[in-house]
This record gives sequence, structure tokens and C-alpha cells, in this order.
Amino acid sequence: MNSLLLLPGDGIGPEVTAESRRILDALALPGLAISEAPFGGASIDAHGVPLTAEAEAAALASTAVLMGAVGGPKWAGVSYDIRPEAGLLRLRTAMNVFANLRPARCFAALASASTLKPEVIEGLDLLFVRELVGGVYFGTPRGIETLPNGERRGFNTQSYTSSEIRRVGVTAFELAKLRAGRVCSVEKANVMESGVLWREEVTRLHAERYAEVELSHMYADNCAMQLVKAPRQFDVILTDNLFGDLLSDLAAMSTGSLGMLPSAALGEAGKPGLYEPIHGSAPDIAGQGLANPCASILSLAMALRYSLGAPEAADRVEAAVEAALNAGARTRDLGGTLSTRGMGDAILAKLGA
Amino acid sequence: MNSLLLLPGDGIGPEVTAESRRILDALALPGLAISEAPFGGASIDAHGVPLTAEAEAAALASTAVLMGAVGGPKWAGVSYDIRPEAGLLRLRTAMNVFANLRPARCFAALASASTLKPEVIEGLDLLFVRELVGGVYFGTPRGIETLPNGERRGFNTQSYTSSEIRRVGVTAFELAKLRAGRVCSVEKANVMESGVLWREEVTRLHAERYAEVELSHMYADNCAMQLVKAPRQFDVILTDNLFGDLLSDLAAMSTGSLGMLPSAALGEAGKPGLYEPIHGSAPDIAGQGLANPCASILSLAMALRYSLGAPEAADRVEAAVEAALNAGARTRDLGGTLSTRGMGDAILAKLGA
Ligand SMILES: CC(C)[C@H](C(=O)O)[C@@H](O)C(=O)O
Ligand SMILES: CC(C)[C@H](C(=O)O)[C@@H](O)C(=O)O
Repeated sequence: MNSLLLLPGDGIGPEVTAESRRILDALALPGLAISEAPFGGASIDAHGVPLTAEAEAAALASTAVLMGAVGGPKWAGVSYDIRPEAGLLRLRTAMNVFANLRPARCFAALASASTLKPEVIEGLDLLFVRELVGGVYFGTPRGIETLPNGERRGFNTQSYTSSEIRRVGVTAFELAKLRAGRVCSVEKANVMESGVLWREEVTRLHAERYAEVELSHMYADNCAMQLVKAPRQFDVILTDNLFGDLLSDLAAMSTGSLGMLPSAALGEAGKPGLYEPIHGSAPDIAGQGLANPCASILSLAMALRYSLGAPEAADRVEAAVEAALNAGARTRDLGGTLSTRGMGDAILAKLGA
Repeated sequence: MNSLLLLPGDGIGPEVTAESRRILDALALPGLAISEAPFGGASIDAHGVPLTAEAEAAALASTAVLMGAVGGPKWAGVSYDIRPEAGLLRLRTAMNVFANLRPARCFAALASASTLKPEVIEGLDLLFVRELVGGVYFGTPRGIETLPNGERRGFNTQSYTSSEIRRVGVTAFELAKLRAGRVCSVEKANVMESGVLWREEVTRLHAERYAEVELSHMYADNCAMQLVKAPRQFDVILTDNLFGDLLSDLAAMSTGSLGMLPSAALGEAGKPGLYEPIHGSAPDIAGQGLANPCASILSLAMALRYSLGAPEAADRVEAAVEAALNAGARTRDLGGTLSTRGMGDAILAKLGA
């Protein structure tokens, strides 16, 4: 039997996840068990840690995990190893979801919400494949030490092995084959050896197995510029954990559709995937019914497609979101007045149709 | 006697630096010795290394250094320790220019060249203060090693000490006092200890010495988003070497004025500063007289102001560039037809006036 674990988390996480739950209920998928666990700050409040052993075990035993968002100023003071983000990093590691798929897509009905000119952003449909369980987020040694002269030193380690690079590279090349067939690999090989290895391994993998895909390389600073100048030049962007964090957020915001964008984090075939909106916990609007639930609902659609073996249901959900948008349904971030629940209603109405 | 060392470098570097040289000649500053040295790929071609001991000594002995640009595909195959960029990193280290000032300014006459909507970008005037001689560009251990299982591992070290953070923080706070009085400090303290220390040291420095400046903190991924969404919210952005590389390039491109933007790298008081355009070597248009010399000429203006004790001359140069722009002078990147030399002529004409 398939199972889906909901981790609503903090801030607007619970509100948006609740709308995904309603969609799930409406889909009434046969044989899907749905459960829920506290996560992030909510778990710190209840259990003193951002991810309990039970929640972690439940995630590993599930077919897919749908997360809301984590973090917020309420937990700014908790110790570093149990902050909300530490729970997220631990979950990603435990699930070994090394390939983070982050589409940056400009919805036609929303193109005018972008701060970029329509002729630059309209029709954008690019996919980031971000390495998610390695690099400077996880490398050791790391910490803050006191030096003999009394100064402090903060340090982290950026580290990638050949196999870490190759496995996420495979994901990028495979996905490119289903799309426009172009991968742009992004690093700073001109200043970092980890980037040199990244470029070499991606180049080798391409030559060995993916010659039919077009491969290019770009420095991360240039990529940041190109995403502003001409984002439609890209099809799939393959990059590491830290560059992927910044660049995919930049591209997501530039679509004007941040509240619309889902993500999927995938590991080994057959293992559970982790699905979550690109947006964060937005503590400033939490609990007010103002958040846009579309990114969560589209993350659910990705879970249906990539983990739950229900691609038709995924298509139905995505079509319902698009239809609701085309019919003018808009939360506040999209310039409208619908509440979180109201947007959920609009999508549910289209789902039934 | 003051001295200025020109390092034209590679690609369009020589062309744009030649126009700065003509401006310098027109200014005819009394008692300024001007010299020139090969740098980057040009130095590799001539001497086998990107920065000769003589060029390094000349830089350290000068009052200011004006650089063009380095690098290009021609030197993609040279060994890592003598690639063009290694020369630039070595020069920055030798000069100990720890504070990189990178203004992102939208010129009124050019606002329409931005890919961002005019209401988002018009009037933008923000200043990055990027740490330039520390962090993951320089941290050790670093390298590529072969592991016992035959795999390779590429690694770098992100590292900052309290004093490295504080000295560049002082620059940011001091400059903010001359501007709108707001500093936003950017890191990823939620995932990196080096970011935790960065935030703590900046917070402490602020409390000790700069309470009159408004200080805020932002994660680097959010900053990338905010630079696209609402860049005018910022006054001074203080950040590390790697985040500063990406974020300042993103902001520069978003102004639509990339070919217009200068930078200054400053070290201890009384030591030479290093001045260079934000743009790179642009090998695709090198040698064709298509490059915009304004960024180089405005970098010269920064050198006049910050190192050469000639603020009136700096004002004159900046006014001449602005006047030429307002009179419609445009190179190709700005939608015009002027050559590099033609743009230099237009500025020279205004300088005389
Ligand atoms: C919350 C934070 C740890 C996380 C990250 O940096 O990976 C977030 O920004 C993201 O991109 O999912
Ligand atoms: C050329 C390169 C080493 C350099 C850097 O990354 O610092 C450049 O991108 C810059 O920002 O000046």
C-alpha cells in the first residue's frame, strides 16, 4: 500500500498543506494511507527537537513525504543543532534525496506579476536539478573555534565526490531527454577545485552516456546574470547545493509565480521522495489565510507523478490549478483577494469538473 | 609622487583601458606617474605566469592599480595554479584589498535597457561591500584527492575569522553613514557556521560602534529573490566573497547598465586600491571596438577619488560620462552604434567642456 506523510511544519506550512489534504481527499486514491507528523519549529515546541525519531522513521517508511515549510523568528534563539532548518537537513540526509527538482515556470496568466519585462519572462520553463545532500551544507570539518590569539574562526567544508556528482548528473541528463535536451552545468571552477571536479565529472558522464544531450558549462556568477538577462536560454540547470539554493530562488522569484512553484527531492529509485513548495514559511502572513496554496498543491502533483504512481491524478491536479488560474482565481500574492481556503475551493471546483 | 599602474589584461580589457588612459592624459594631473604591466592571459603568453613578480611589486609600490579584465577560452587548458584568474586572486591577496565596493546603479538614461520593469529598477543606487581576500576562494585545505576506493573528491574551505569580518564590516558601516545609513548583512547562518560567526560579529560591531546605522540580516537565497523583487529596498549590502560574487553580478546585470559599472577594492588606509570594471573580459567581442569603456572610465574615477586624492577630477570624469550619456552617446550594449573609441571621444568632449 502507498503511504503519504504530511509534514506541515511552520508559518504558512500548515495552511497550505491543509489545502493539499483537501485535494487528496477529493481525489480519493484507492489504497493510499495518509498520516501527519510535527516538523520543524512545531516539533521543537512539542518535542524539543525539529525532527523526532518517530517522524524520521515514518518518513523513511512512507512512499512520499509532502512538507509545508520550516523556520521562523520564534526559533531564532534555539541552539544550532536543533534549529528548525537542522530538522530539514537531517530529513534530506536520512531520505538521501540527492536530486532536487525545482521548476521555474512562468504561468501565462501570471506573467504580468513578474518584475521582469513580459518579453523576457513569458513562457519561461526551466528546471533546476540541485544537488541536495552534499556540498558545503554538510561537509566536515565545520564549526566555530577559538584561535590561540583569542579570535574566533567560523568554517565549513565544500566537498563533492565523483559519485555524488555523477548520480545527480544522471538525473539532470535523464530529465533533459524528456525536455528540450539541454543541460547547463554551473559551478565556479575558476576559483574552486570542487568546481573543477564537478565540471570534469559532468563532462565525462556526458561523453560516456548522454552524448545526445547538449551540455554547456557556466560560472555561477555569470549564471546569476544570465537568469536576469535572458532566462529562456536555459532548459535544465545542473548545480550544487549552495549555488542551487540561490540561483533557483532567484529564477523562481523572477517568474512572478513564487507562490505557485513546487519542488521534488528524489533519491534512489523506489525510495520515498520529499515534496515541498519553493516558498518559505512566510511568518509575517502566517495564520491569516493569506497564503497561496498552489505551490503545495503542485508539490502534491509532483508526488503523485514521481512517487505515488498516479500520473493521471497528477495531470488532473495540475490542470485544475491552471484552470482555476485561467478563470481568474487569485490569492493576494497574485494581486487577488482570495483566501488560502478560497483558492483551494476554486481548484477543487475545477478538479470535480 | 602618486603613481597609477595599468593592468589591461585580456579580452576587451586593453580596449577599455586605452580609453581610460586617454581620459587620464586629458586630465593631465600634475605629478602622476603612469605605467603599465602585462596581466592575466596576456602575461601567461609573454612570461608563462599570470602575474610576474615585477608586476606584483609594481602594484604594491603604486598608489592605485587600474585593471581591465582577465581570462578567456584561450587559457582554458593552462594548469590551475597559473590560470589567469589565479593571477587576479594573487594580486588581490598581495594587495590585501579586503573590501570590494561594487555599486549597482541604474543610470536614468539607460533604465529602459534593464530587463526589469522601469518601476522596479529606476533610480536604483545600491552598494555592495564584498569581502574579497577570504572565504572559500582562499580557504585551506583545498584540492582534489583520490580516495581509497578510487573515487575522487574535490574540496574547498569556507573560513572567516572575527577580524576578517570586522574590518570589512567597518567599511560597510562607514560607507553607509555617507549614504542612506542602512546596512543589510547577508549570509546563510541557517546552514553554515561561518555564517553564524559572520552574523554575530557584524551584530557586535554594530552595537559597539555604529548604532546610528540601521542593520538588518538576510539569508543569501532570500537576498537573491529580493534583488529581483524589490532591489530599491537596499542601501548597502555587506557580504562574503562568494555570495558577493553572485549577488553583485545579479544586481549589476539587473540595472541594464553592466557595461557602465565600476568597482573598487580597498585595503588598509594608505595602501594602494585596485580598480576594475564589474564586467568581464568578453572574449566574444574582444578586439572589435565594440566594448563599452564607461565601466573602466568610472573605475578610474573611483581611483581618483579613493586612492589618488583627486576628488574634483573624479567628479569631472563622472559628470562627463553622465553628460555624454544624456547627449545620447551609446555603445552597442546600450543599444547604440558608437565604437569603444567613439564613446571615449564623446566623454572626452564633455570633459573638455
Ligand atoms: C531552509 C533552508 C535550510 C533551505 C536550504 O537552504 O536548502 C531552503 O532555503 C531551501 O532552499 O529549501
Ligand atoms: C574572475 C573571477 C575570479 C572573479 C571572482 O570570482 O571574484 C570575478 O568573477 C569577479 O567577481 O571579480
